[in-house]
Amino acid sequence: MGYRPNFEKGGGILPAIVQDYQTGKVLMLGYVNAEAFQKTLETGLVHFYSRSRNKLWLKGETSRQYLYLREVYVDCDEDAILFKVEPVGAVCHEGYKTCFYRRLEGDSLVIVEERLVSPEELYGKKA
Amino acid sequence: MGYRPNFEKGGGILPAIVQDYQTGKVLMLGYVNAEAFQKTLETGLVHFYSRSRNKLWLKGETSRQYLYLREVYVDCDEDAILFKVEPVGAVCHEGYKTCFYRRLEGDSLVIVEERLVSPEELYGKKA
Repeated sequence: MGYRPNFEKGGGILPAIVQDYQTGKVLMLGYVNAEAFQKTLETGLVHFYSRSRNKLWLKGETSRQYLYLREVYVDCDEDAILFKVEPVGAVCHEGYKTCFYRRLEGDSLVIVEERLVSPEELYGKKA
Repeated sequence: MGYRPNFEKGGGILPAIVQDYQTGKVLMLGYVNAEAFQKTLETGLVHFYSRSRNKLWLKGETSRQYLYLREVYVDCDEDAILFKVEPVGAVCHEGYKTCFYRRLEGDSLVIVEERLVSPEELYGKKA
């Protein structure tokens, strides 16, 4: 079975930070259960557990913007995970490199990243 | 009141990634509620909400290892927060710069960071 973080602490699900292996940019935060963690290690592609859809999903399964796993870290309490990855293109479903593309300035969120691709290109036009 | 993330999505509490503003190192993951978020913005020092103790806490209140806030980002869904900070000394209660001081190698966690200080020095010796 090998190592697994303390999923019990999070009721079976723990947060996973995704960071670009080369640039250090924080790309997104997702959630993993034991199965998603295992699948990620086995395949080398980051898998998450969707809390809204209650299912495992491979990041990139629709958009083809996969996250190639490079390194796995866990924190002192073993209830948070850090995946260092090599991303493909836009990680965010909004078409940005990172989901954290807005910075708080005063009372407003300001977009500070370039849009790489339109959401329609990533996921196909809605009919 | 100003901007606030979508705390309702997390049942009042959202995860906050803490990243070193200068080095890009991911330092820890904590949780904030609306009050902790507001206090962080007001004081420029990162505050969290402790889920186990059910209370607001100032990171560094005991250890003096404060996190000075530099920038705040929110993700596309506004249910995850990224604090870019200037840390003081060891962020982890175990005495390391980052809580993510162990990397998964094969089936084992391997310490890959230097210990900056002993936990006793940070928090005082237990009687």
